[in-house]
Amino acid sequence: MSKGLIVSISGPSGVGKGTVIERLREMIPGCRHSISVTSRAPRGTEKDGVEYYFRSKEEFEELISKGEIIEYDQYVGNYYGTPLTPLLQMSSEGKTVLLDLTVPGSLALKDKFEDTVTIFLLPPSMEELRSRLCGRGTESEDLIEKRMAQAKNEIAKAEKFDYVVTNRTVEQAAQEIAAIMKAENCRFKRSSDAVETLLAQ
Amino acid sequence: MSKGLIVSISGPSGVGKGTVIERLREMIPGCRHSISVTSRAPRGTEKDGVEYYFRSKEEFEELISKGEIIEYDQYVGNYYGTPLTPLLQMSSEGKTVLLDLTVPGSLALKDKFEDTVTIFLLPPSMEELRSRLCGRGTESEDLIEKRMAQAKNEIAKAEKFDYVVTNRTVEQAAQEIAAIMKAENCRFKRSSDAVETLLAQ
Repeated sequence: MSKGLIVSISGPSGVGKGTVIERLREMIPGCRHSISVTSRAPRGTEKDGVEYYFRSKEEFEELISKGEIIEYDQYVGNYYGTPLTPLLQMSSEGKTVLLDLTVPGSLALKDKFEDTVTIFLLPPSMEELRSRLCGRGTESEDLIEKRMAQAKNEIAKAEKFDYVVTNRTVEQAAQEIAAIMKAENCRFKRSSDAVETLLAQ
Repeated sequence: MSKGLIVSISGPSGVGKGTVIERLREMIPGCRHSISVTSRAPRGTEKDGVEYYFRSKEEFEELISKGEIIEYDQYVGNYYGTPLTPLLQMSSEGKTVLLDLTVPGSLALKDKFEDTVTIFLLPPSMEELRSRLCGRGTESEDLIEKRMAQAKNEIAKAEKFDYVVTNRTVEQAAQEIAAIMKAENCRFKRSSDAVETLLAQ
């Protein structure tokens, strides 16, 4: 069986990544998302491998040291991270996996797993990015300046990504990413089964 | 300005390349085709650079020796070929160029101009290819056997192409090729202008 695509999307804060990914999930129903791993305790009816993979702090640190965590963060004393193995597992079962990672996260994943398709989502202009950040209404002038500076640093790394997509409208950006996914499935390395089958007939 | 895509489609005789390309031209109106060069004399109102580029036999042979002809054939004592320079010219003007070349033609073009996107069109099965060849009703049993053997030789070269697309239906194949073209336009190397513009703001 052909491997499923692993697609990782990054972009600066405020670019609209969440909305575009939400639209993509509607367009491509079979698409899986990555389940995060956390060291916090399960709440209520949460089940391991459904909402999160639940691991102890020590287990999480062991996963980090083994290179099993693509990226992680700490929040209120608990770890939250993206595990590598379940992704590779889903992909080997032929499932498409769509990831929402930070810029270093996408680059680290590509580094570990070369077959990852990395996409950088760009704002149509820096002015538009600023107005989207202001539009949230939750962030101080200071924080907005900080995010704008960070955005430039991140955009400068777009050259390390396979593709760049400008988010003019949610629909156009989602259509372009869907086209990238369709095209990547036609790459010879992912469609060699079709060729082998014909040659065997 | 960004360069226009050069897309070259190849596939075995009977696979339905012509119909798929015709559908693609409807879907992507700005798409240019390559004008062939010939050593035959213009007929009626034919103009140089419209129906064909008209060159003398000597000029054609000089073009061949200079590596200016991607592929050529002889028919009733005249040369017919695909010239390289006009393609590169259209591409440098930002125009998308769609080519219908033989398998060696696509590979030679890729070799000369690495940025070419090469697509191999596959039949859904060898049986279906045979039935499409028989359906033409113009070819002898012998010729069909010859074409089937040639098809296998050609399909074995699909691995040298960037993409493979199976022609199950004209619409599906054209949609997949259109997605490949959309995706290739999002490659960082073809969209770096967008990134530079943002970084300069």
